[in-house]
Amino acid sequence: MNPYWSALVRDLRPYVPGEQPKLSNLVKLNTNENPYPPSPKVLEAIRAELGASLRLYPDPNAETLKRAIAQYQGIGTDQVFVGNGSDEVLAHAFQALLKHPLPILFPDITYSFYPVYCGLYDIAYTCVPLTDSYEIRVEDYMRPNGGIVFPNPNAPTGRLLPLADIETLLGRNRDSVVIVDEAYIDFGGDSAAALVNQFPNLLVIQTLSKSRSLAGLRVGFAFGHEGLIEALERVKGSFNSYPLDRLAIAGGVAAFEDRDHFEWSRQAIMWTRQWVAQALADLGFEVLPSAANFVFARHPSHDAGELAAALRERHIIVRHFRLPRIDQFLRVTIGTEEECQILLDALSELVAGKAAA
Amino acid sequence: MNPYWSALVRDLRPYVPGEQPKLSNLVKLNTNENPYPPSPKVLEAIRAELGASLRLYPDPNAETLKRAIAQYQGIGTDQVFVGNGSDEVLAHAFQALLKHPLPILFPDITYSFYPVYCGLYDIAYTCVPLTDSYEIRVEDYMRPNGGIVFPNPNAPTGRLLPLADIETLLGRNRDSVVIVDEAYIDFGGDSAAALVNQFPNLLVIQTLSKSRSLAGLRVGFAFGHEGLIEALERVKGSFNSYPLDRLAIAGGVAAFEDRDHFEWSRQAIMWTRQWVAQALADLGFEVLPSAANFVFARHPSHDAGELAAALRERHIIVRHFRLPRIDQFLRVTIGTEEECQILLDALSELVAGKAAA
Repeated sequence: MNPYWSALVRDLRPYVPGEQPKLSNLVKLNTNENPYPPSPKVLEAIRAELGASLRLYPDPNAETLKRAIAQYQGIGTDQVFVGNGSDEVLAHAFQALLKHPLPILFPDITYSFYPVYCGLYDIAYTCVPLTDSYEIRVEDYMRPNGGIVFPNPNAPTGRLLPLADIETLLGRNRDSVVIVDEAYIDFGGDSAAALVNQFPNLLVIQTLSKSRSLAGLRVGFAFGHEGLIEALERVKGSFNSYPLDRLAIAGGVAAFEDRDHFEWSRQAIMWTRQWVAQALADLGFEVLPSAANFVFARHPSHDAGELAAALRERHIIVRHFRLPRIDQFLRVTIGTEEECQILLDALSELVAGKAAA
Repeated sequence: MNPYWSALVRDLRPYVPGEQPKLSNLVKLNTNENPYPPSPKVLEAIRAELGASLRLYPDPNAETLKRAIAQYQGIGTDQVFVGNGSDEVLAHAFQALLKHPLPILFPDITYSFYPVYCGLYDIAYTCVPLTDSYEIRVEDYMRPNGGIVFPNPNAPTGRLLPLADIETLLGRNRDSVVIVDEAYIDFGGDSAAALVNQFPNLLVIQTLSKSRSLAGLRVGFAFGHEGLIEALERVKGSFNSYPLDRLAIAGGVAAFEDRDHFEWSRQAIMWTRQWVAQALADLGFEVLPSAANFVFARHPSHDAGELAAALRERHIIVRHFRLPRIDQFLRVTIGTEEECQILLDALSELVAGKAAA
């Protein structure tokens, strides 16, 4: 090890994001980006902000953005926290709210950044297995813990935990924070935002990357009780005063103002998802029920790694995780109809090809 | 304390940035922003990037920006690290390179974010007093330490440490990392970048916020030995895969390509600084020699806090720190000539007013 490194650096195992290939003629269905462009009003708002004022620092508190989010959610501005993508918001939340003597709990199959944050902040954790049908069962989380975190819908499974189950969990877990990571909630789930005034230990995290088509702008946010938000603000203020640049703040505000564009794009994605899931099932895939902008599917007689490699040869990229319990699944982002048709045609050939051989 | 907070949150004392008032008719000389707009080529490059591709994640490694910086500095791409403003880069550097059993060293009068990072990452530190003339004396740092960090030029004093002194320090401090925080180096100092191939324990940090007029875009960077950069990458990859958005990457690249604009604006600021320093001296102020885009000055017979308050009544904002040893100083950002004339006229009245009374 380099002698200048802090001791913690040696053992860090950074998160590996899905690749961002530089080729342009790809059908890119690997990182759950929205296939539709952001609202024209977002681009207009950024264009209006783009000028000499870039010489000035942004508002360190991003008040206009917090207000837009608070109004949209029907909560107070002091119940909102914003950050440089939901990954930064999650990082601050792990450090500010999940570092306690007892281990925190999260599913064994989930967003693989969670154990990475635990490494960064030296947080003990216990993985709670999903059921055999890859569901979160809230009863499994009813044990002493330093906090609970899970995505809803879960990633990479896409399965949704009903709001009633989250309410049950919160009612019986009042001594630690429960973080519901709702990166994909706009594609078919009910947000736990409705519960933040009822439970002072609930933090809900969302992002503009998926349902607002702004992965390239890096804006995430959280809402919860003022006390939880204050903890996040303290950590943020001790890390970086200005995490959101002027353009991201302006674009973020506009994203909440154009409801029509948002509704149209999420409806289109949900419709396409239904069609893709059925078509995959028709090809013999087992497809988990998804409330996200992706589906998670496996074929009983085709190796997932081989399928992913064969798709890649045809310039179609999907995500394959070489991890226990899910190494036979492919995670396929819902693209445009055209992109999905290309994928389905390719899979149809691959599956039929092997069946014929 | 809120029962859900991690233990560290209670004791955090976040950094307090200079205020960003929403009034528009201010002479704002409080946060060391550049008075001149960014290069038109930066705005063009951002405009060109602004479109449907915002739906896609940025390059997590910001290769184009790293390459532009590496070329500009004449070093390798793997010797460059980029982040969301130099504050984020500093934060990662504290966690990755300065957390060791021995306390780290930094000046008693310096960038007040340093002790905040120490609080966030539980790093022991010792403050080394500046000399009576507010200079860093490198001999004072030649003692066992877990690392050394200082701005050069120092903030808020503006005083420059000659490169020869830094080389002496590095030559005699080979067991720990030395971080030279060069936010203001382009306004009259020689960068320690020239030494990075010679000392594997030197990390140099710079920013686009000051000399490139891009405080609102949030781009900072570091260079040093590949081993130090790898430590920063590991921490970054465990915190947030995509700290720089697509627009910041595009604008940052363009900022390094327009050398003419950069040269013009820094020369203008250095010229104005010379004039302002002389004019303040003529009003009876003691002005520390500055190599930054601000001056640090005190008046023997006028209280700094009262002067700052009187200036504020005239819609002129400067920075006043209520801290030991410097509570009689004002830190004045070098603005446009017009802004500086307004300041000097006001100070002239205030100083003469009291002299007459």
